[in-house]
Amino acid sequence: MENQNILIYDTTLRDGTQREGLSLSVEDKVRIADRLDRMGVAFIEGGWAGANPKDGEFFRRMQEYRLSSAELVVFCSTRRAGIKAKDDPMLVPILAAETKWITIFGKSWDLHVIEGLRTTLEENLAMISDTIAYLKSCDRRVSYDAEHWFDGYKNNPDYAIQTLKAAFEAGAEWFVLCDTNGGTMPDEVAKITKVVYDSLRQWGSESPQIGIHTHNDAGLAVANAIAGVQHGATMVQGTINGYGERCGNANLCTVIPNLQLKMGYECIAPAKLSQLTEVSRQVSEIVNLAPDDHAPFVGASAFAHKGGIHVSAVQRNPLTYEHVTPESIGNNRRIVISEQAGLSNVISKVETFGICLRKEDPACRQILQKTKELEQIGYQFESAEASFELLVREALGDRPEFFTISSFHVYCTTDATHIDGGVNSQATVKVMVKDEEHLTAAEGNGPVAALDVALRKALISFYPEIANFYLTDYKVRILNSDSGTQATTRVLIEFSNGKRRWSTAGVSNNIIDASCKALGEGIEYGLLSAVRHTKV
Amino acid sequence: MENQNILIYDTTLRDGTQREGLSLSVEDKVRIADRLDRMGVAFIEGGWAGANPKDGEFFRRMQEYRLSSAELVVFCSTRRAGIKAKDDPMLVPILAAETKWITIFGKSWDLHVIEGLRTTLEENLAMISDTIAYLKSCDRRVSYDAEHWFDGYKNNPDYAIQTLKAAFEAGAEWFVLCDTNGGTMPDEVAKITKVVYDSLRQWGSESPQIGIHTHNDAGLAVANAIAGVQHGATMVQGTINGYGERCGNANLCTVIPNLQLKMGYECIAPAKLSQLTEVSRQVSEIVNLAPDDHAPFVGASAFAHKGGIHVSAVQRNPLTYEHVTPESIGNNRRIVISEQAGLSNVISKVETFGICLRKEDPACRQILQKTKELEQIGYQFESAEASFELLVREALGDRPEFFTISSFHVYCTTDATHIDGGVNSQATVKVMVKDEEHLTAAEGNGPVAALDVALRKALISFYPEIANFYLTDYKVRILNSDSGTQATTRVLIEFSNGKRRWSTAGVSNNIIDASCKALGEGIEYGLLSAVRHTKV
Repeated sequence: MENQNILIYDTTLRDGTQREGLSLSVEDKVRIADRLDRMGVAFIEGGWAGANPKDGEFFRRMQEYRLSSAELVVFCSTRRAGIKAKDDPMLVPILAAETKWITIFGKSWDLHVIEGLRTTLEENLAMISDTIAYLKSCDRRVSYDAEHWFDGYKNNPDYAIQTLKAAFEAGAEWFVLCDTNGGTMPDEVAKITKVVYDSLRQWGSESPQIGIHTHNDAGLAVANAIAGVQHGATMVQGTINGYGERCGNANLCTVIPNLQLKMGYECIAPAKLSQLTEVSRQVSEIVNLAPDDHAPFVGASAFAHKGGIHVSAVQRNPLTYEHVTPESIGNNRRIVISEQAGLSNVISKVETFGICLRKEDPACRQILQKTKELEQIGYQFESAEASFELLVREALGDRPEFFTISSFHVYCTTDATHIDGGVNSQATVKVMVKDEEHLTAAEGNGPVAALDVALRKALISFYPEIANFYLTDYKVRILNSDSGTQATTRVLIEFSNGKRRWSTAGVSNNIIDASCKALGEGIEYGLLSAVRHTKV
Repeated sequence: MENQNILIYDTTLRDGTQREGLSLSVEDKVRIADRLDRMGVAFIEGGWAGANPKDGEFFRRMQEYRLSSAELVVFCSTRRAGIKAKDDPMLVPILAAETKWITIFGKSWDLHVIEGLRTTLEENLAMISDTIAYLKSCDRRVSYDAEHWFDGYKNNPDYAIQTLKAAFEAGAEWFVLCDTNGGTMPDEVAKITKVVYDSLRQWGSESPQIGIHTHNDAGLAVANAIAGVQHGATMVQGTINGYGERCGNANLCTVIPNLQLKMGYECIAPAKLSQLTEVSRQVSEIVNLAPDDHAPFVGASAFAHKGGIHVSAVQRNPLTYEHVTPESIGNNRRIVISEQAGLSNVISKVETFGICLRKEDPACRQILQKTKELEQIGYQFESAEASFELLVREALGDRPEFFTISSFHVYCTTDATHIDGGVNSQATVKVMVKDEEHLTAAEGNGPVAALDVALRKALISFYPEIANFYLTDYKVRILNSDSGTQATTRVLIEFSNGKRRWSTAGVSNNIIDASCKALGEGIEYGLLSAVRHTKV
């Protein structure tokens, strides 16, 4: 029953999107799939093609996209009652998704068959086996999700086992035990998974392929996934950051390091485990949900030490107050926040720009002071390293003045035909470059785009390399949002020159002003690195 | 080993305050203690008197305060090495707290004795027994917290057991096994708790009093608490909402309903279990942290149903998709509208507006169609129920036209002294009200604030109730943000009239336009409900 390899089946793109308030564009889905593939998950469940226009489009997009190692999976229920699978129109877009693998979910719980599907127990068995057999005949590989498995088994074990057997005999390759309502306790998961393992062996499967899919309604999704693995499952289904309906799915960012660092299983290549914190934060950015600082393993506070006793002990021997090393999952230890620790943070941060500072250096204390002031008013430099580097260079007297934005004006205006017509945005910018003032105007899709174009127009004759810079991301966060439109706005802008990316931040109580600050610093940083690279 | 009563030991006021960003006033602590007492927890750990001025004052305050049934507990470490407990000044404020119960924590892990305390293994045993014996001689009852119990036991089981025996022989009444670093797995907790149970029996304790204190660094705090209870613990320590250092402590709002509703134990009086959701939210109010909507049992989304299949089934039989009844812990079922919505979602959602629809009704399909179309271009109605209600009323021909926004112009402009000066924002709006056009202008802190003021100015003489509406939240989300400032913007705005709140959404490739749409619908919805309430 021991198996050192556990396959990770990610369902962030399907079950994860059931979370209230989480909605993904097709582009978001492609980015997440790409990131998961690079981390090395085995399966990526992309959605239910045909259930909504977006999922269908996603699978079309993915046909042109080459995942390096993950298998893309399309998800669907068993066919409807009373018709043949080959005649069920629901399966047409499923096959059109052109994935090698299809996950079919079916009912294990007699109550759901009768009250949910309103059909007979026999017909449900036929729906399972007919659907799987048909898809096999279309040359697909099938994973079978036994929905409500544990509740079903507890209510009517014989019938539940019959549903699995129907899937087995029809040719399903994986048998995924779902705790759909999330209410099962770990000892029940353990016991019932063992029963399935033994049944599959009895039916002739030499090494049963069991998956475990858990929900967190009782706060036990991770514990239940682990109990499943300890009793025969070799696939774990879950989502990044535990996104999912109600209280969420098993959080893969917690399950993977538990299995891999503590229990000796291999879920992803050991060299890739240190990507986990980054993946967690990137996905939370893409879905635009604030990351949970207190998340196990990957949270910003997961290795934060507060009290004096802890801090001195952890510095002598990290093992004393840390259950795993933060580096193993790409996280960091944080000491909160004595000024000494602050100074060492500044020093180690500045080193990454190739600048060597010592604690005694007055610039060091000045940078710390300025950082704290700016963070107090809403800046955050973790996602705006270019702005931080400019701040550091200013403190060191090493920030060349490429230009200054003297003033700007932005107009947004509708036509009389506003309801169906567009909105016209114009910006004028006055910029000082090499002691001369330049006033330019431009139009754009929105006010920030107009400002961006006007700014480039003013600068391009002086700095032609600006033509290569473009905006790759623009994010807005309202701070202390309780005060509505009076609140502080933080804008983060990401730029690229085709070779590398950099990010800047702007904060203001005016969103246009915040955007202008971030735009200005982004262009400045791009020029600074162009100069540096020319020198080298 | 079976015991149907589990005592709840709350440490929100002590271990909970170790959470980064959580800080309580004395008044806050009194309010939380009072609320926990009314819900019926057995023990309330109030703090470490003497460690900071606040905790000392809290215990003084509590001497005048009569808790109805909970025992207030003061927390402290074993005495320092090398002196007698009676001479250790640290214990003076502990006794001055005048509680019947004192919790003393001591070291179980040899590594911590040597590297943390820098003393000998023998002296640590003496520190445990001398401290407990001294407090017993002062007529106190003592609970002993075995810090780092599981790590200590795994590293050196013999020594760990000796520390417990020292506490036992000195007269401690409870033996609390702490997973201080939060890294222990449930099967280890189970096995090691059983060892302690057997040891205590062997030392002559007829019914061993074991507590379990777990942390969530591996996402297993709740599972570990349950494993402890299943193997002999009859006290669970934890915090409300799982507040605590790093990844938090065992969340009592999850542990209690698991033990009580699923496993047949009694933690608090059954009649009081339905206070749990209220307690969770009140404590989050007092500590000023946003409640976790996705928290098991007590979260606002814990019983929220999104997918169409789920909704129709849960309406026929709640058991199909709910592991416990929401009412049992004082929570509610909620139906959520989203792109996965089916007709039944629409129907049950619309019912909450007092509108009765049937599946056959063409308006029903029309609403579903419109919702899906709008979600495709970036709308999201889960957090914008007022916009959804307007959409429904439009489909039903029941959306009165209060006004139309014909056009707007927004200006943002800096002074020449931009770098230090502010940004001036002005808006002009042209509105059609009762067949007349009205043009107004206003200034504001930012462009959206200016637009809001101008809009109200145009409308207030027709609809004076607008004076009571105000913005309480403003959120911006950039969709498909890869395309930078060209991307689609979704704005969510929350309004209030002092009595209730409502939210609207606006989507556009121009942030000002998106804001204008959401503002307009927000005012419209406010007027609509004012009319309805006048009618009733």
